[in-house]
Amino acid sequence: MWKNDQEEPVLAANEAFYRAFAVRDLAAMERVWASEVAVACVHPGWTPLLGRDAVMESWAGILGNPKAPAIRCLQAQATVYGDIALVLCYELVERGFLVATNLFVRENGAWKLFHHQAGPAAAEAPETTGELAPASKRLH
Amino acid sequence: MWKNDQEEPVLAANEAFYRAFAVRDLAAMERVWASEVAVACVHPGWTPLLGRDAVMESWAGILGNPKAPAIRCLQAQATVYGDIALVLCYELVERGFLVATNLFVRENGAWKLFHHQAGPAAAEAPETTGELAPASKRLH
Repeated sequence: MWKNDQEEPVLAANEAFYRAFAVRDLAAMERVWASEVAVACVHPGWTPLLGRDAVMESWAGILGNPKAPAIRCLQAQATVYGDIALVLCYELVERGFLVATNLFVRENGAWKLFHHQAGPAAAEAPETTGELAPASKRLH
Repeated sequence: MWKNDQEEPVLAANEAFYRAFAVRDLAAMERVWASEVAVACVHPGWTPLLGRDAVMESWAGILGNPKAPAIRCLQAQATVYGDIALVLCYELVERGFLVATNLFVRENGAWKLFHHQAGPAAAEAPETTGELAPASKRLH
């Protein structure tokens, strides 16, 4: 019931999110996010942003900031629950690793991001390939 | 399509999670988490924990630690997508505020937690009642 053939398109949507982030493409970022459901975004250390206007305003600021860090997504793994999908991944940024929870919804056949939270991960670097680290790799 | 009468039971399940956390009740914590789908938990600053065994082992450690901080959930808001629900809330802990993304799945009619990520929020304290702070309250 909880697995289907949508994991690959979900991971492609997740990649599109990080590509838009990495290349500072606000128009692409606007296409990544859902437009038919409520969206929310929790940037690390920020107050949660609720609603598409607030979320897109934040991305306009981040993508337009020349000091914004480079970013790369690692070890994304998707789980699909009908028309909702969860992606858990690492974000490699200049100052270290973050962990992200990304939620997607299927809108008119396309997977769209509707919730993003990124926060600090353990200081230890994850493997750059393969699955997310098993529990034995946690530090405390 | 995306709203229904399940918001209240989802919020009750979210409250049960924080109650189990606050009173250090591991048996209650085990009942809070899903048993029929894959679960994951991202404690702030940890490597993500995948699978019920790793997640429950982490809670056994946290709830059994006399130095674990007090915790309180504030401003929880739920959105229901069929048999999946998202709760976004603040966590008030001794050293400040965290933001949490909690995902629930309906198993045999009961809402069960299957994904939790908590991470740092803005240093500014959220209101202790009412909705999550609007975008204008973010700090940077």
